[in-house]
Amino acid sequence: MKHRLFTIASRSRGRKQSSPLASRSFSRLSSQSDRPSFGIAFDIDGVVLLGHIPVGGSPRALRRLYDDSGELKIPFVFLTNGGGFSESKRAQDLGQLLGVDILPSQVILGHTPFKQLVNRFEDKLVVAVGKGEPAAVMSEYDIWTTSLGLQINVLSIDEYTSYFDAIDPLATYKRWTTKTDIDQNITSNETAKRKIAVQTERVQAAFVVGDSVDWSRDIQVLCDILRTGGLPGKETGNQPHLFFANDDLEYQATFPAERLGMGAFRIALEAIYNRIHPIPLAYTSYRKPNPFVYGNAETVNLDVENTTNSGIRCFKTLYMIGDNPKIDIRGAQQAGDPWFSILTRTGVFKGKDNHSEFPADLVVDTVEDAVDFILRKECGS
Amino acid sequence: MKHRLFTIASRSRGRKQSSPLASRSFSRLSSQSDRPSFGIAFDIDGVVLLGHIPVGGSPRALRRLYDDSGELKIPFVFLTNGGGFSESKRAQDLGQLLGVDILPSQVILGHTPFKQLVNRFEDKLVVAVGKGEPAAVMSEYDIWTTSLGLQINVLSIDEYTSYFDAIDPLATYKRWTTKTDIDQNITSNETAKRKIAVQTERVQAAFVVGDSVDWSRDIQVLCDILRTGGLPGKETGNQPHLFFANDDLEYQATFPAERLGMGAFRIALEAIYNRIHPIPLAYTSYRKPNPFVYGNAETVNLDVENTTNSGIRCFKTLYMIGDNPKIDIRGAQQAGDPWFSILTRTGVFKGKDNHSEFPADLVVDTVEDAVDFILRKECGS
Repeated sequence: MKHRLFTIASRSRGRKQSSPLASRSFSRLSSQSDRPSFGIAFDIDGVVLLGHIPVGGSPRALRRLYDDSGELKIPFVFLTNGGGFSESKRAQDLGQLLGVDILPSQVILGHTPFKQLVNRFEDKLVVAVGKGEPAAVMSEYDIWTTSLGLQINVLSIDEYTSYFDAIDPLATYKRWTTKTDIDQNITSNETAKRKIAVQTERVQAAFVVGDSVDWSRDIQVLCDILRTGGLPGKETGNQPHLFFANDDLEYQATFPAERLGMGAFRIALEAIYNRIHPIPLAYTSYRKPNPFVYGNAETVNLDVENTTNSGIRCFKTLYMIGDNPKIDIRGAQQAGDPWFSILTRTGVFKGKDNHSEFPADLVVDTVEDAVDFILRKECGS
Repeated sequence: MKHRLFTIASRSRGRKQSSPLASRSFSRLSSQSDRPSFGIAFDIDGVVLLGHIPVGGSPRALRRLYDDSGELKIPFVFLTNGGGFSESKRAQDLGQLLGVDILPSQVILGHTPFKQLVNRFEDKLVVAVGKGEPAAVMSEYDIWTTSLGLQINVLSIDEYTSYFDAIDPLATYKRWTTKTDIDQNITSNETAKRKIAVQTERVQAAFVVGDSVDWSRDIQVLCDILRTGGLPGKETGNQPHLFFANDDLEYQATFPAERLGMGAFRIALEAIYNRIHPIPLAYTSYRKPNPFVYGNAETVNLDVENTTNSGIRCFKTLYMIGDNPKIDIRGAQQAGDPWFSILTRTGVFKGKDNHSEFPADLVVDTVEDAVDFILRKECGS
C-alpha cells in the first residue's frame, strides 16, 4: 500500500495508468516485504543534473534507492518546474542520463497540474506554448475532440502561427526549421480545413507548457490572441485564459550564471501587453513553491486510501531535496507536514551556512550527501 | 547649392561620400536650372511600403519627383526608424521595390545617428544587436581598430554569443541557421584568437541597430553583459552603455494589426533587467519623434552653408509625410520650422478626420495624394 502513491500518481496522468512499466512496478513494489514509511522528492536542475550532465554523484545516489536486482526499494519522485515534454518522455530521458529505471509516474512536471484544467476547455480551441512538444503534452492530458473538423483541439503555437500570414514580421529573418507538432500524415486538404477552422474559431485559452523558444513570435502572437478575444486581427475582446506551468525568474543550468526562465518570459509578455492594452494581463501559474504541487502527492495518496476504504496515511516523512531556497525549500515549508527540506550546494544556492530567508531543515553539499543522510536516518544504513 | 543637403547628407555617412552615385547625383543636380525651395521626407513603413509591397501609389508618386530622363528633379529623403542594414543597402532595396533610383544619401535610418557616437568607443569592444547585418552597419560608421588582436572591434551579438558555451540554454531547441557577421575567410586560428580576446575583454557598449530576431537569447546575453560590467559570468559591475536606434512600440506592416517593434523589445529587456538587478537599466534611444532626426537635415544643411560662407537657408519648406501621428507628425511639429506635416491613412492612422492629440498640417488618403498636393502648391503642377 505504502508505495501506491508512486504508482497511483501515474493514474492521475491518464494514459500512463495502463503503462506496462507502471503495472510491473506496482506489482513488484507490492510484492516487497520492506515498506518504507518515507518518500523522497528530487528537484532536477541543479540537484541531479546541470543541463544534461549528472551532478553531485546523482547516479550513485539514485542507485542506492534500488536493490541489487534493480528493483525499486525506496519510493521517490522527481518534482520539477521544468516541462515541455510528456511525463513519460521525461522519465525515459532521465533514466538514460542517470542510469536508473524511472517510471512516468515518478515524474511530476510544472505542467502536470494542467491535466486538472483540460475538462474546462473540452471542445474549445486551445493553444500550447513552449519548447519541445507542448501540444503533445496537452493532448496526453486528454484534450481530445472532433470539433472544428479537427482531430484535436489543442494546437502548438508553431502550428497556430502557420495559419496567419505575416503575423510574425521577423519570420523572414528566422532561417530556422522549428519542427511543429503538425501530424506529418495529414493531407494538404486537411491542412486547408484546419486553417479555415482556426481562422474562424476563437482561442479560449493559452497554456505555456514549457520555456518559449521564439520569444518575439510567441509574445506577438499571444498579444494578438489575448487582446482580440482569441482571434488575431484589429478588433479587441475579452482576454482568453492564460496559464503558466511555472514562474521561475531564473534557474541554474550549465552556464556559470543563472539563466532566465519562464518567469522572465511572463514578465516580458506582461510588461508589453500592459502597454498596448488598457486592461492588465490576467494569468495563473502553477508551480513550486505553490503548495499545490507538494500537496498533489498527498492528495493523490489520500484518494487511493479512500478508494481502498483505508484511512491510513502512507508516509511519516517526505523529503524534498532542492537547490533553490526560494522555490524548493520555501515550497516544502509551506506544504508543512510531512515534508522535510534538504538544500544542496550544487545549483542556485552556494552559501556556506543555511539560507537566511528560507532556511532548510538540512543543508548538504550534494544530493549524494542528502540521500546518505536519509538512508542513515531511516534505515540506519 | 540648395540641393547640397541631399548630397552632403551622404558625406555625413562616411564611405558614401565617395560613392559614384552620389557624385553623379551632385553634378547632375548642380547642373539643373530649376532649384526647388522645398524638400520632402518620406516615412517608409505604412507610407510607401507595407512590408515589401508598395502602397498608396508610391511608385507613381515618387516618379513625379524625377524628370522624363530619370534625373532627380525634387530633392527628397526617406526618414525612417527602420534599420538593420546600411544606408547604401537600404537605398538599393528601396530603389528595386519602388522602381526609382535612390541614393544612399537619401536614406536616413534609425541608427544613422550612431555614427556620431562611434568615436567615443574607438579601440573598445562593442556589441551590435538586431536583424540583418548590425555589425556591418556599425563598421560602416568607422568603428575600426586592431585592438584585441581583432580586425574589428564591433561584433554582432550572433558572433559574440558563439564565444560563450551554454550562454543560451534554449540554443538546442533552435534548429536555425542565423548567418552571423563572422568573416567567412577567417581561419580557425583567428577564431580561437577572437574567442580568447572576447572572453577577456569587457564590452563597453551595446548598440541595438535593428529589431532583435532572437529575443530570448538577446535579452539573456544583454542582461549578462549589462549586469556584469561587460563580461558575462557571476560577478556584477557598472552597466555598459546601451543605445537603441528607435523606440517604436508598434508599427504597421502587412498584417492587419500593428506589429511589436524595438520599443517592445526595450520594454521586455528593461522589465526583466530591473527584476534581476538592483540598479535600473540606463539607455539612450535615437528616434523619431526625437527632433534630432529632423534637425539633422537642417544641421547638415547649415554646415554646408557655413563651409560656403553663405548664410542663406536652403529650404522654405520641408514636408514630412508619415502614417503615425505619435511618431511622424509629433516629430515634425517638435522640429518646427521649416517642417510641414502630412498624415496618410495607409498605415497606423486610419481616422476619418485629423488625429486629435497630434493633428497634422494636412491629412490625405495616400502618399500619392500628398505628393500631388505638394507639387500643386510648390510648382502649380
